[in-house]
Amino acid sequence: MTTPPTAPPGGVRVVALGGGHGLAASLSALRLLDTQLTGIVTVADNGGSSGRLREELGVLPPGDLRMALAALCADDQWGRQWATVLQHRFSSDGPLDQHAVGNLLIAAIWGILDDHVAGLDLVGDLLGARGRVLPMAAVPLHIEADVHLRADPDRLTVVRGQAQVASVDGQVVSVRLDPEDPPACPEAVEAVEAADWVVVGPGSWFTSVMPNLLVPQLRDALERTSARRALVLNLSEQEGETEGLSPTDHLEVLAAHAPDLRLDVVLADHSLVDDAGVLERAAQSLGARVVAADVAVARGADQHDPARLARAFEGFLRAGIQ
Amino acid sequence: MTTPPTAPPGGVRVVALGGGHGLAASLSALRLLDTQLTGIVTVADNGGSSGRLREELGVLPPGDLRMALAALCADDQWGRQWATVLQHRFSSDGPLDQHAVGNLLIAAIWGILDDHVAGLDLVGDLLGARGRVLPMAAVPLHIEADVHLRADPDRLTVVRGQAQVASVDGQVVSVRLDPEDPPACPEAVEAVEAADWVVVGPGSWFTSVMPNLLVPQLRDALERTSARRALVLNLSEQEGETEGLSPTDHLEVLAAHAPDLRLDVVLADHSLVDDAGVLERAAQSLGARVVAADVAVARGADQHDPARLARAFEGFLRAGIQ
Repeated sequence: MTTPPTAPPGGVRVVALGGGHGLAASLSALRLLDTQLTGIVTVADNGGSSGRLREELGVLPPGDLRMALAALCADDQWGRQWATVLQHRFSSDGPLDQHAVGNLLIAAIWGILDDHVAGLDLVGDLLGARGRVLPMAAVPLHIEADVHLRADPDRLTVVRGQAQVASVDGQVVSVRLDPEDPPACPEAVEAVEAADWVVVGPGSWFTSVMPNLLVPQLRDALERTSARRALVLNLSEQEGETEGLSPTDHLEVLAAHAPDLRLDVVLADHSLVDDAGVLERAAQSLGARVVAADVAVARGADQHDPARLARAFEGFLRAGIQ
Repeated sequence: MTTPPTAPPGGVRVVALGGGHGLAASLSALRLLDTQLTGIVTVADNGGSSGRLREELGVLPPGDLRMALAALCADDQWGRQWATVLQHRFSSDGPLDQHAVGNLLIAAIWGILDDHVAGLDLVGDLLGARGRVLPMAAVPLHIEADVHLRADPDRLTVVRGQAQVASVDGQVVSVRLDPEDPPACPEAVEAVEAADWVVVGPGSWFTSVMPNLLVPQLRDALERTSARRALVLNLSEQEGETEGLSPTDHLEVLAAHAPDLRLDVVLADHSLVDDAGVLERAAQSLGARVVAADVAVARGADQHDPARLARAFEGFLRAGIQ
């Protein structure tokens, strides 16, 4: 039985970074607490509906932004109804097949307003969103990865494209952005600077979470901010992208991509914490303590439960504003 | 100079029938008065964005419904902004080119709710619409016309499709629906039965206005209702569809398609009224008097001015509720 959290902290300013289902999970949890929320979203997707819109219209990939907005929809009939509409995908034998309505709406509004942030704020208004969603950068990006392909394990192969990296048959070693030095979304940088807490992850480690740390102005802000920093570990490795990577390996990947980033908390499901203290020591090397909690929807599941995650956040978020 | 109408009638229940820009014009005028508005829309479009959606998704053509809804948007920043979004068309070299955002949204909501009326009401809620928009029938229709083609004037040729009829090079004689006996939208029939006034036209005479009179249950309701009936004449003939048709010819076309329909008022721009009383006599044969007014945006223009049209409506709408 999961009961909702009871004593939310008072108006903590929280910035959650990531993309896709992982960011939607952290936002779904954080909205249950008394937080001022900002979601900052990786904009490197090149697959599915987002990839096609990016190709056809030259826009930022809207899919992960849409998903984050839907996760913040007002908790009333209006908000839930419009979230359902935005999340709906067409099903046909034609060119609309699998386009998400919200992706089309966001792309259209960008075409009218020519302002990413104002456009996302308008969709947030439609949803009565409990917070704000921002792109990490103002230009569409591509991800490139160095990979030990299973078919060619002895050398590093460059794999290009978020969709391609996410489903690669091999071991990803590192990722980088193209362009390498994209301008950060200024409002995203400001939100990180003004935050009480920043929350990194969960999510596709190389294709959703690491990219946030690779936008130079955003990484600088994350390193510089007076906010406390929490990292939420994934519940399991992901086929393809992080196959064979232990929880400790995830922390090492983070350190390799953002060597100067210090953390305060590593939030891990109980199932990830070993008796020998290996994870604890890896967290300490980043400046963090491990907070262990039951945060999965069920034992062994790879999805976070919003209410459980919220209770785990609640335990430490207050600390950041004392 | 056009000044807004000053003394609107009190809550007159008005049903406006038609499609496309003509119906949007009458709704834009009627919303300026104190009316309870329902727009009933022809659903036979097979061209453009609507035609492609109908083909790809099997839905009612949403374009004229979208345009009518946008015409009813709330007169505040929210309503105008969302009307702008819904009216926006993508521009690309790909499959989204020229799709109107509102068409996609309406089609998606139909896919979720599986209820035309509930879906249109939801989009109306989004716009804060000053009234309701309904399809005339619950199934997509095709228009077939008998035409004297310019290239073959001596015999009647059957032309199929609203887009094809609207742009035909010849003289349209009559139109019919396929299927011939479509089920009317029940809420549309109820609105006609409960109305104080029904307003037919302006609009593309054969492809937007006449089709409303060809849905048997809707025509019955129009003939049976205790509401008064006004017909708004177009300001000029339309290239293709009504080339060479005089105002009187327009009334004769109406009488030929709905022989039992009686009218109370034929609203005509001053420019359409002849000194010899020809239009007056044609109107009388349908039971109507001619109300002449300056209703064009400018002398010789083919677009109705909403404020002028509203003042003309205002002059006779009160009569229906005395």
